[in-house]
Amino acid sequence: MAQHRVVIVGGGFAGLQLARDLKCPGTSITIIDRRNHHLFQPLLYQVATTVLATSEIAWPIRTLFRERKDISTLLGEVVGVDVAQRSVSLKGGHTVPYDTLVLATGARHAYFGRDEWEPFAPGLKALEDATTIRRRLLLAFEKAELEADPERRKALLTFSIIGAGPTGVEMAGIIAQLAHRILVEEFRSIDTSSSRILLIEAGPRVLPVFPPALSDYATKSLTKMGVEVCTGRPVTACSEDGVSIGDEFIPSRTVIWAAGVQASKAAEWVGAERDRAGRALVEPDLTVAGHPEVFIVGDTASVRTEDGNQVPGIAPAAKQQGKYVASVIKARRLQKPAPAPFRYRHLGNLATIGPSSAVIDFGKLRLKGSLAWWIWGLAHIYFLIGTRSRMAVALSWLWVFTTGHHSARLITQKETLKDEV
Amino acid sequence: MAQHRVVIVGGGFAGLQLARDLKCPGTSITIIDRRNHHLFQPLLYQVATTVLATSEIAWPIRTLFRERKDISTLLGEVVGVDVAQRSVSLKGGHTVPYDTLVLATGARHAYFGRDEWEPFAPGLKALEDATTIRRRLLLAFEKAELEADPERRKALLTFSIIGAGPTGVEMAGIIAQLAHRILVEEFRSIDTSSSRILLIEAGPRVLPVFPPALSDYATKSLTKMGVEVCTGRPVTACSEDGVSIGDEFIPSRTVIWAAGVQASKAAEWVGAERDRAGRALVEPDLTVAGHPEVFIVGDTASVRTEDGNQVPGIAPAAKQQGKYVASVIKARRLQKPAPAPFRYRHLGNLATIGPSSAVIDFGKLRLKGSLAWWIWGLAHIYFLIGTRSRMAVALSWLWVFTTGHHSARLITQKETLKDEV
Repeated sequence: MAQHRVVIVGGGFAGLQLARDLKCPGTSITIIDRRNHHLFQPLLYQVATTVLATSEIAWPIRTLFRERKDISTLLGEVVGVDVAQRSVSLKGGHTVPYDTLVLATGARHAYFGRDEWEPFAPGLKALEDATTIRRRLLLAFEKAELEADPERRKALLTFSIIGAGPTGVEMAGIIAQLAHRILVEEFRSIDTSSSRILLIEAGPRVLPVFPPALSDYATKSLTKMGVEVCTGRPVTACSEDGVSIGDEFIPSRTVIWAAGVQASKAAEWVGAERDRAGRALVEPDLTVAGHPEVFIVGDTASVRTEDGNQVPGIAPAAKQQGKYVASVIKARRLQKPAPAPFRYRHLGNLATIGPSSAVIDFGKLRLKGSLAWWIWGLAHIYFLIGTRSRMAVALSWLWVFTTGHHSARLITQKETLKDEV
Repeated sequence: MAQHRVVIVGGGFAGLQLARDLKCPGTSITIIDRRNHHLFQPLLYQVATTVLATSEIAWPIRTLFRERKDISTLLGEVVGVDVAQRSVSLKGGHTVPYDTLVLATGARHAYFGRDEWEPFAPGLKALEDATTIRRRLLLAFEKAELEADPERRKALLTFSIIGAGPTGVEMAGIIAQLAHRILVEEFRSIDTSSSRILLIEAGPRVLPVFPPALSDYATKSLTKMGVEVCTGRPVTACSEDGVSIGDEFIPSRTVIWAAGVQASKAAEWVGAERDRAGRALVEPDLTVAGHPEVFIVGDTASVRTEDGNQVPGIAPAAKQQGKYVASVIKARRLQKPAPAPFRYRHLGNLATIGPSSAVIDFGKLRLKGSLAWWIWGLAHIYFLIGTRSRMAVALSWLWVFTTGHHSARLITQKETLKDEV
């Protein structure tokens, strides 16, 4: 019997979980990703804010599967899928044939049709995004130290974070720490504690997926840390010089985008119907209509919960879908009955705000404050891959906890914005 | 009495040592560097070869001096010095006045007048150089995995390191480990153990600063690890496709430059005489002729040992010069007699070759093998700055030592060479 070839595009949470669970005689797996590493996105904002090193939250995909001889890994960028011929095309001309295809290509941050904002308000999805934000953040203080003009200095020391979901809240909290505490004693001309950190949210409250009481707690906690929380007003413009909130222009040389996301092009590749965010509408078993051999999972699929809401774009949801697809493929291979349609099980939401401050909503169990913070930290260390990263992240956090200093405050890469020194 | 303003350009080993030692009433210090971090260059090759993370060997300069209120740090690129007006010009238009100026701007790798080789044979001086080499190295294996043509695959799996000083030897050793051991079980189409690692040296032997017996040991050790040592033949051409050694062209898609260095433009800025490598010829007290208020130290100065040789471009030499200049400035400030001319004290040479293999030459004490390797490792951990980095590097090394796996195998940054996927 010929090998059944499963091709997984995307080594994120969904793709990885699928590859792990799908171990089946006569089945070979190829994972294609345009990066060589799986990234633990929930902690990416900590790379952007100088707490963690890049290699602490990213692992070569092929290393993770080195013992699985049934799995090959290819570094390549998928540019299209030929569903008739059953093959995937890579940039550079390679094609990879499949019997079963799983597209798990995730999402990028999106600007609600205002793509021209991107150069001024970088978002956070890949490692390079994080080092870009880290560079801009640290350069702002460096430039302010050299700046004689008080207005320009003020604009350099104003940091705007757009979007108050978990990522926005977490970044605002750490940037406030950095500006108001950590950097204070290191500069001679500027007072970094005079920095303004704005958290801008179009909706009525921060952390909208949490119950209002926890949003209130988060707002109070952020305010105490020196973050100005601006809710209920959308951003109407972004430029090199700052942001406009409604009619008000705020000079701000560092703007970070933590708002919308846009799905990858997976739906387009296979001609699937898609929703407004570009996510593929999939069948109850996560396949594409008319193509039972093609699955779409994770942030690039539009999947509904039992009460009709969109399944959230978080790691547990992606993993559950990966696990589910593995069970479907396995059942087919072993000629067993197909599993029941995919059903998302929401485990809860957690978000950290600052030192000893976090919120947890496990439905019946709602927590805030330092206990929530410890649970948040331990949960994230637990979900990292491998002892090495757990030790490294634990060491980094322990260091911040005991000394208050961040250990990855590097400005790297070249600057591209024209006016940068 | 007005403050005496000392400006130090360059936060390398010389500049840092000087700032540390120069604590003198009525004296303020400004350190200018075009990067925000001091880099522990002796271990940079380990970032390039996936062993260490970038943040483990680099620290923000202003963090190192946060408690020294007499020291300011500026991130800026010096473009010239006005010795008449006594001021330093930064890119972007800022000028920084000085009473005493110390130029400690180091060196870059150089191509003996063949600058057109640089895109094909990157050298190793800054953090970005290391991540560039790391990316090329790892991409070569990834591309080979996708390559069907045996000749092109072979070229992708041929790694050429030009220059067999300590950096070249150390890189060749680790790349051999990576190719012949670590990566073997992770690829499915290629056999990484078939990779060729060439160490090319124009001179007659590797590690020329060591005694011939230790060079012999290094050659044997490298050969045992699978490195092909080619001595006595210079590289005559470098291109995207490979290197020519004498008349022989070797297809090799990854070429790393570990040969010559070229001093910074410091000598030009102040109109000092310079040697062929661009190093400033300095007075016995490390000042510029006719300008007792301008010192040039470290890799950008041409300083001679007592027996007339060039002081080597190593960290201890730079530190000794920084220390010396601090004593000269202090003596002047306190109106004490000037210290005797600078005298370089050579402590010895160490180089590591591979696991449990290193060479040490402390003059009377010469060591090779695993004891030398442990001394090398402990010495480098000792010379790192701060407990945090010592713990992180010790953890990284311990991990390699016990599991054999490298923990910073990330491909980051965008590729610029035109044909890259």
